[in-house]
Amino acid sequence: MQAIKQDIKPFLDENFLLENRIAEILYHEYAKEQPIIDYHNHLPPDEIASDKAFSNLTAIWLYGDHYKWRAMRTLGVPEKYITGDAGDFEKFQKWAETVPFTIRNPLFHWTHLELQRYFDIDKLLTPETATDIYGQCSDMLNTPEFSTRNLLRKMNVAVACTTDDPIDNLEYHRQVKAEGLDIRMFPAFRPDKAILIEKEGFHGYLQKLGQAAGVEIKDYDSLLQALQNRIDFFDENGCRLSDHGLEQAYAAPFTLKQVDAALQKRLSGEALSAEDAQAFKSAVLYELGKMYAEKGWVQQFHLGALRNNSSRMMKQLGPDTGFDSIGDFSQAGALARLLNRLDAEDKLAKTILYNLNPGDNEVMATMIGNFNDGSVRGKMQFGSAWWFLDQKDGMEKQLNALSNMGLLSCFIGMLTDSRSFLSFPRHEYFRRLLCNLIGRDVHNGELPNDVEWLGGIVRDICYRNAKAYFGF
Amino acid sequence: MQAIKQDIKPFLDENFLLENRIAEILYHEYAKEQPIIDYHNHLPPDEIASDKAFSNLTAIWLYGDHYKWRAMRTLGVPEKYITGDAGDFEKFQKWAETVPFTIRNPLFHWTHLELQRYFDIDKLLTPETATDIYGQCSDMLNTPEFSTRNLLRKMNVAVACTTDDPIDNLEYHRQVKAEGLDIRMFPAFRPDKAILIEKEGFHGYLQKLGQAAGVEIKDYDSLLQALQNRIDFFDENGCRLSDHGLEQAYAAPFTLKQVDAALQKRLSGEALSAEDAQAFKSAVLYELGKMYAEKGWVQQFHLGALRNNSSRMMKQLGPDTGFDSIGDFSQAGALARLLNRLDAEDKLAKTILYNLNPGDNEVMATMIGNFNDGSVRGKMQFGSAWWFLDQKDGMEKQLNALSNMGLLSCFIGMLTDSRSFLSFPRHEYFRRLLCNLIGRDVHNGELPNDVEWLGGIVRDICYRNAKAYFGF
Amino acid sequence: MQAIKQDIKPFLDENFLLENRIAEILYHEYAKEQPIIDYHNHLPPDEIASDKAFSNLTAIWLYGDHYKWRAMRTLGVPEKYITGDAGDFEKFQKWAETVPFTIRNPLFHWTHLELQRYFDIDKLLTPETATDIYGQCSDMLNTPEFSTRNLLRKMNVAVACTTDDPIDNLEYHRQVKAEGLDIRMFPAFRPDKAILIEKEGFHGYLQKLGQAAGVEIKDYDSLLQALQNRIDFFDENGCRLSDHGLEQAYAAPFTLKQVDAALQKRLSGEALSAEDAQAFKSAVLYELGKMYAEKGWVQQFHLGALRNNSSRMMKQLGPDTGFDSIGDFSQAGALARLLNRLDAEDKLAKTILYNLNPGDNEVMATMIGNFNDGSVRGKMQFGSAWWFLDQKDGMEKQLNALSNMGLLSCFIGMLTDSRSFLSFPRHEYFRRLLCNLIGRDVHNGELPNDVEWLGGIVRDICYRNAKAYFGF
Repeated sequence: MQAIKQDIKPFLDENFLLENRIAEILYHEYAKEQPIIDYHNHLPPDEIASDKAFSNLTAIWLYGDHYKWRAMRTLGVPEKYITGDAGDFEKFQKWAETVPFTIRNPLFHWTHLELQRYFDIDKLLTPETATDIYGQCSDMLNTPEFSTRNLLRKMNVAVACTTDDPIDNLEYHRQVKAEGLDIRMFPAFRPDKAILIEKEGFHGYLQKLGQAAGVEIKDYDSLLQALQNRIDFFDENGCRLSDHGLEQAYAAPFTLKQVDAALQKRLSGEALSAEDAQAFKSAVLYELGKMYAEKGWVQQFHLGALRNNSSRMMKQLGPDTGFDSIGDFSQAGALARLLNRLDAEDKLAKTILYNLNPGDNEVMATMIGNFNDGSVRGKMQFGSAWWFLDQKDGMEKQLNALSNMGLLSCFIGMLTDSRSFLSFPRHEYFRRLLCNLIGRDVHNGELPNDVEWLGGIVRDICYRNAKAYFGF
Repeated sequence: MQAIKQDIKPFLDENFLLENRIAEILYHEYAKEQPIIDYHNHLPPDEIASDKAFSNLTAIWLYGDHYKWRAMRTLGVPEKYITGDAGDFEKFQKWAETVPFTIRNPLFHWTHLELQRYFDIDKLLTPETATDIYGQCSDMLNTPEFSTRNLLRKMNVAVACTTDDPIDNLEYHRQVKAEGLDIRMFPAFRPDKAILIEKEGFHGYLQKLGQAAGVEIKDYDSLLQALQNRIDFFDENGCRLSDHGLEQAYAAPFTLKQVDAALQKRLSGEALSAEDAQAFKSAVLYELGKMYAEKGWVQQFHLGALRNNSSRMMKQLGPDTGFDSIGDFSQAGALARLLNRLDAEDKLAKTILYNLNPGDNEVMATMIGNFNDGSVRGKMQFGSAWWFLDQKDGMEKQLNALSNMGLLSCFIGMLTDSRSFLSFPRHEYFRRLLCNLIGRDVHNGELPNDVEWLGGIVRDICYRNAKAYFGF
Repeated sequence: MQAIKQDIKPFLDENFLLENRIAEILYHEYAKEQPIIDYHNHLPPDEIASDKAFSNLTAIWLYGDHYKWRAMRTLGVPEKYITGDAGDFEKFQKWAETVPFTIRNPLFHWTHLELQRYFDIDKLLTPETATDIYGQCSDMLNTPEFSTRNLLRKMNVAVACTTDDPIDNLEYHRQVKAEGLDIRMFPAFRPDKAILIEKEGFHGYLQKLGQAAGVEIKDYDSLLQALQNRIDFFDENGCRLSDHGLEQAYAAPFTLKQVDAALQKRLSGEALSAEDAQAFKSAVLYELGKMYAEKGWVQQFHLGALRNNSSRMMKQLGPDTGFDSIGDFSQAGALARLLNRLDAEDKLAKTILYNLNPGDNEVMATMIGNFNDGSVRGKMQFGSAWWFLDQKDGMEKQLNALSNMGLLSCFIGMLTDSRSFLSFPRHEYFRRLLCNLIGRDVHNGELPNDVEWLGGIVRDICYRNAKAYFGF
């Protein structure tokens, strides 16, 4: 290894991503110690309820992580070693072979940050270190200290909000609450399946939803009643927010008659026109928005993913396996109309907008300003960089767009959006970037040199804003 | 206040935004002293004609500034203190409470730059300094030195072009001209209301336009005649440019028969099809373009705003009150067709294209190249970053796109686009950024170290290009 | 000339674009010596076959370079001195007058890099140096060392892939191959004219294509047969890749019957509906994709140019004369459908996606991940920054998007896409930027300080990845 010495910062040291003294102070003295409110993730509630332990590093790290899978496929690793029947250690070896080729991809940073923070391993993961690292981590994972709850505690997680289907009985959330767990786990309401009327399986889903809600869904009114019942149930069980994953907002014109007819058609197996489907989706989204506002919930919109692009792999592996990408849908018009419809009736809930295409950053950063009306501090939020954008460039662009066109100081900050119990150092990553942007501005004379004041804003963004916003 | 000392640049000192010695020299020795040609703004002509004085800092700073209003609403300030009936000092206090939370937003820089440049106040505006600053500034505003004209003189403004409706009688422009005022004030022709046929109030507007033009508008021909008359009148009164604020350019196919029929329908109260409306707008835009070319005017297009998104607040406060945002309209195709139609008949006026969505920067920066034909230096212009983009990132992106895809050296530079008499330090801000980008390139070996040559280009962009382009 | 001394890097020295020691080592010790595989350009094959010499600097530099033409037109240079009948030296003088005004445009860097690398001239091109530089370069161009082949050898070009019409008889490629030239020249198959059914000249083109293929094209089947014949012929003559220049991918639904009927209509002179044209283009694109896959070729898509925007100049000068710009077409949906159609039948060739609108970078960088299936290392490629984006900002954005959302390490790197024998320093430019980005990350502690490992990846991207990918 040829290492050049010339004032070079060591990789991933304690001042990782912090480029000057102000940034260091902001991070180490203000940001670092703040608890984590992970208000949107995809952690499996049962694994927290059962305080699950993982058998080895592959089980916790590679099962289900489609970010890593994409990288391996790009490098030419056969599917056998990714989602196939190769053994856990073989899979890990293939991942270790891949890691050195992930330079400049967030995977390279996540990987080594996670090894450091959870396992105290400073070595780089390479084919040479793979056996040692696998052994060492797997041994640790087999101790009680590495159960799901302890992993969360290690990262100082105060609150975790999972993402749940309206038909979910929330038994794990209830169990954890009854137990009085120090990590508070709340559900979030994600009713995509009740909205996407043209999807296969819609009819079957409505039957399950009806059962869960104790309502026979035979028309639009009964569908809304079922959704209201489930929202009541979620609310009783601590839910404070909803989530929608959509290509675009739906805000077409509709009449109740048209929407009811569209639903009836669909229930009786007839084909829907594109216009009828739009009308239905627009109507349900609007009605749900009103219900969220009534409860004082926060509604989230994740906009712009183009999903399941490989039908061959969809058949083989199902959704969420690494075959999604960034769409270029038009967003502004429909989103403004949807939010305005709700606002016009004073039924606009607190709202977080997440865009997947970074080209929409400025649309979102200014859209929120249209509906901030002085009623709630930071009522409308431009959500943190998400999925493909959840990396240094993506986060900085989101933070800069928000700063330039809104108030960074009111931002509720980071969330993992992750299925992995090892993903929480992303909060640290975000906090370092945030402190660095502010520190850089001070250093360059673009902000006053008042660390105490700026440190307070940093604390707000890392923790206190989210706490106040959600009422946790 | 905890201040860290480690080679940290003071906030907003004389070398604000200038990161090396070359940049400093370019700014201080070449850019700073250039007069200002503010070729597009929204200053009220009557307030220049009357040499108005302002009663206090709230009157000049907070009345009508929807940038500040948005920030206050985002922070949760009630409307009472924004556009409501709170007293001027109460409103100012709320603004002072807001300012520290605007870090990284251009408002933070504008605010303190304006306090420094106009009032010689170096303090930061905070709740603690609010009373002093309000008193001190209000006292100054009550002296003759702070009349509108003297505020412009303080900033070395040579020319100011306002934005005027075709029906305007331009009495204030004529008054100021007759007076021989040292600051030359010219009108600009903004005929949006004569184009947007589907808007409420279109019919009534045409009546007023007809009166102003001395033409009874009863068909398409008489509409064009009325517009021509008003263009003649504006031209006689020193107008050198027009302006259009549009979501997108209009360049649909049309026939005169169709356009005339569409107008007749609208005048008789019938509904128009979307197609007829497009045809009408396309036709008028094209005819106006020819008229501008005949006069040797410059035509401006401000493209891509999504306006009046909150119907609730529109009812309460009207337009231009802080409820607009960035749209994601398709721009390239129609814009190319409109410009080509005019160019094909050798009737393409000098043109400035402004986009509100920064994702369109490269479309605009290359669009101008399609119609630069060697006839006029810099004939087609990619206009300076506008509205939400009028900040460091936005300006740098515009300057970089223009540099990479066109000739920065032919750029006519900055304008305020503002309603405020205190907004002129934005020219300084722009000049500092411009000098810094060039200085950085020299510092990094990406441009030759020839300050005299580069300083000449800086002077061109700050003043001389605009002077030659508009013929002022 | 006023030159400031304060730690300023000289313009265009040996460490041009390299901002720290790591970057310098990566470039000088790893990147610089790699041979060039220029896998996509528009060099005229006959000029390589004949080893053409150029009469003077205008002949090799200004004839046909529409980048330079646009700059001159923007500056107000009359067409006479651009494409008109002025003498070669007069034209050169006008270019020399223009160059100092191209600061911050890539032309400024290209110009001086080309003068340095090919002619050992370190002077800046200005009106003052024009006569000397013209004389000196023209003298050199009249020596055998400056023939086309020697110019390529000077830049260490190992392989050059031209861009050829399916009807081309490839005589120059065959001649060069027979000769055993040390620079390997391969054709690439660019069948745009066989796809764009609505274009004038389509009918006549199909006749020529039929003649070249020995097939009478009277229906869809015979068209496909003709294309297959030409693909076979190109393949026999060393072709390894195809290329498509399209506004958008075509992936509309179609039936064979519909496509055949559309073609018949067009052949008999009838007008086509937009829907029929879409169906035809979608069908042919899909069938060609399958043929490429069968041959093991690489298919390239150049997406998003808005061409021939000035009909006046189109009439006067024809296409590719500087009147094209960046479009804002929707790209993601159709592209995903086209690639999926092919992938679903296991007929997706290795593919390179090039976007002209930088706002599509993230769409492309994630699109490739949808179809990387582990079968080939880096099977799907996000192509290097192209045309208007072929400059520092554009290249860095492409490299960063690819890094953040894919694997930079699998990238096949740079190509000139150029008609000019003097454009090969663009490979050097790309390599410097690549090394600098990696070097910067090491310097900042964002990558480990292991120059040997990183140098290997640099070598891969500069040469070895392309070699393996194309099988050259």
